[in-house]
Amino acid sequence: MEINQEELTYILNILDAEINQYKESDTSVHPYDIAEQLLKLRELSSEEYEKIIKKMPHELFAEVLSELPDYVQEETADIFSVKKLANIASLMDTDDAATLIQNISEEHEEISQDILGHFDDEDKELMKQLISYEWDEAGSYMQTELFSAKIDENIGVALERLKVLKISGEVDNIWHVHLVNERDKYLGSVGLEDLIIFDHALNFEDIPYDKHKNYSVNHKENIKDVVEKVTNYNLNAIAVLDNKNRLIGRITSDDIYDIIEETATEQIFNLAGVNDEAEQDEDMFQIGKTRAIWLGLNLLTAIAASLVIGMFDATIQSLVALAILMPIVASMGGNAGTQTLTVTVRQMALGDIEGEDAKKTIYKEVVISLVNGTFFAIVIGIIAYFWFNMPMLGVVIGLSMIINLLGAGFFGSVIPLVLQRAGVDPAIGSSVLLTTVTDIVGFFSFLGLASIILL
Amino acid sequence: MEINQEELTYILNILDAEINQYKESDTSVHPYDIAEQLLKLRELSSEEYEKIIKKMPHELFAEVLSELPDYVQEETADIFSVKKLANIASLMDTDDAATLIQNISEEHEEISQDILGHFDDEDKELMKQLISYEWDEAGSYMQTELFSAKIDENIGVALERLKVLKISGEVDNIWHVHLVNERDKYLGSVGLEDLIIFDHALNFEDIPYDKHKNYSVNHKENIKDVVEKVTNYNLNAIAVLDNKNRLIGRITSDDIYDIIEETATEQIFNLAGVNDEAEQDEDMFQIGKTRAIWLGLNLLTAIAASLVIGMFDATIQSLVALAILMPIVASMGGNAGTQTLTVTVRQMALGDIEGEDAKKTIYKEVVISLVNGTFFAIVIGIIAYFWFNMPMLGVVIGLSMIINLLGAGFFGSVIPLVLQRAGVDPAIGSSVLLTTVTDIVGFFSFLGLASIILL
Repeated sequence: MEINQEELTYILNILDAEINQYKESDTSVHPYDIAEQLLKLRELSSEEYEKIIKKMPHELFAEVLSELPDYVQEETADIFSVKKLANIASLMDTDDAATLIQNISEEHEEISQDILGHFDDEDKELMKQLISYEWDEAGSYMQTELFSAKIDENIGVALERLKVLKISGEVDNIWHVHLVNERDKYLGSVGLEDLIIFDHALNFEDIPYDKHKNYSVNHKENIKDVVEKVTNYNLNAIAVLDNKNRLIGRITSDDIYDIIEETATEQIFNLAGVNDEAEQDEDMFQIGKTRAIWLGLNLLTAIAASLVIGMFDATIQSLVALAILMPIVASMGGNAGTQTLTVTVRQMALGDIEGEDAKKTIYKEVVISLVNGTFFAIVIGIIAYFWFNMPMLGVVIGLSMIINLLGAGFFGSVIPLVLQRAGVDPAIGSSVLLTTVTDIVGFFSFLGLASIILL
Repeated sequence: MEINQEELTYILNILDAEINQYKESDTSVHPYDIAEQLLKLRELSSEEYEKIIKKMPHELFAEVLSELPDYVQEETADIFSVKKLANIASLMDTDDAATLIQNISEEHEEISQDILGHFDDEDKELMKQLISYEWDEAGSYMQTELFSAKIDENIGVALERLKVLKISGEVDNIWHVHLVNERDKYLGSVGLEDLIIFDHALNFEDIPYDKHKNYSVNHKENIKDVVEKVTNYNLNAIAVLDNKNRLIGRITSDDIYDIIEETATEQIFNLAGVNDEAEQDEDMFQIGKTRAIWLGLNLLTAIAASLVIGMFDATIQSLVALAILMPIVASMGGNAGTQTLTVTVRQMALGDIEGEDAKKTIYKEVVISLVNGTFFAIVIGIIAYFWFNMPMLGVVIGLSMIINLLGAGFFGSVIPLVLQRAGVDPAIGSSVLLTTVTDIVGFFSFLGLASIILL
């Protein structure tokens, strides 16, 4: 594609201004703004993009890179030397550095190892630990930068310590002091705002602090449970503990925003037979390939439904009205089932369906689908009667509508519940399973009833 | 239903213990925990539930009620006197109080007015203002409790002021000082953590503070744009300004969590033809009624597709294999279209498709569907050939597969883009529109090609 020279100059000018603002410590520019322009530039001219990022101050590029998507982080391995990459990573927050190294390791395992080799032993161990977490474990989202104090420390002394850490740039976005005992065991937290109230001559143990058991999580805890705690208790950060309850990190509100959004995207995509990670690929043939797997599964279920129709070929031959009407029954079942399935999957994800609620959910969905099934049975029954002037055809399609909508409500709620009990994400695969059911039940009940009642 | 006496006693004991803990200022209990138990109790015995909430301290019930769902807030109008409700509302944060009064007004407009009548003039005006915001405006999510300081105020003096406000319980969850000029115009913010660094003898104007234009929003700004700013810039609170740029409130991370989750739920539900607000109703017949509207629309589109099939009744009569195979083409088109539609809608919601990206998106989707269409055309073509031993039937279904998947990719991306330009939420209605297209194109192309090529 031809480069739009005007746009290129425009973006280069913006970037130039923003980078200068940053250099002058002007707080009205944010790394996100620079990242946004860089992404546009990268689309226009990868050459200019590389030129700019190579001459950016490392501190700035470290911050900007944290805001850039995974595939852009990945390709830095082709642009920078290992030494430079190690330097950039060391300037990032630990969680962002771990993400960068993980992204690089996707395509360049050796380079990511070489980067780790440039770290001192302590940092190397820490990075290895962070990278080792599974993507759904709390530890993989935590940053180790935080501010903690021993419970018997003097408040004033601790605040002086924080001042030094802040000035050196070692910590940022500190809203709490996390309190630990002499063996680093986590005891609770106190907000900076609360410290203002108390006499700074006191020790932390002398003042009331939050010791709610749910204000901390184990590092191996599922990230979805972490999100549930943070949102239920309206926290803006949560402490992460190791198996000995020692404080090892924290997860902050900005991570929680991302996780909530990503989890929702994953669900929406999975319900539609799309893989959220594959969709982020730059290569559209890769995207297409992943989607094709799903379509292939769907083809199998569609053929299964066709086999059911094939069982009744003689029936259809003698009454072609059946071929005309049969997609209506299947379509209504598919839609009603999707309604039930979607509501069930989402409410499960939000923690609204737990334990005993499962039975209630199935009961509710069956009642709703029975009522709606009866209503639409009457409507389509009358339509079919007048359309083909056959009263019994109306009875047949009406009955099969009730059967199929009932099945849709039942299986729409049962499938995700059963998948979850079996340890499978209920959003994955449930749509295909469900439409298989509603297609087969729809065609079989309609054509079966027709061959019994009409012929 | 019979009451499970054992469970009832169990929950009553937990609640009793938790309420006592709260009374003793034990920080290990959170209003959310009490709200959770109350919801369970309410399911078991509304009588016991009312008894408990009536004897709870108002301060506690105000906090707990903020955590309870809308329908529980609504029914407080039947349980408490107007005077008590006004007292409870006055103990809540302003945003929670406004939500409570709005929930009560749903069914009891007069009671909500009477509650406002118990407020003093200033609070009444404020509440009226908060209630007047549309649900998608920033103002309807803001709380007016915050900590602000004049730019020429002394830092130490301001912190002393904050101390007084904290002790009196007037403010809570303060992480920033919001700075304003002498006419209350918002200038920027400084984190409490940053104040530790600076000499408290200085004035705010003497220290660097955040003046990023995107760290504040207008009160009428769409809440989705607010979420975008907060998440892009990793904020934990954002200032809300009136039309004269005066500081009038703030939106905090806990609101943002809720909004992201609710927005995602809305999208997931809308894509499946379900209304998220209606689903929260306790009455399942109300839920069913709202879903029926959607199913009714779907019935119309299914009938339209049947009319298309009806145009080819003679063709089907002479070759019943067509009736057997035709749902495959429609189903594959529907699935491929749903993939495209879902990805497009979600990416639009996340702000990933803007302006010029629209063309790129359509291009990408058309290419993917063309590639997948060709692949599945070959697969199903061969299957149809061997199944019915008719080579040309394979050609017909293959060609119609390509046409329908191409249409699915094109319309799956174009429909939401056009809906958004027309100012309509692209998640609402797009699924039904799309399946109408894929059904009609699928049946028409398959049966049409069959009647031309095969007969």
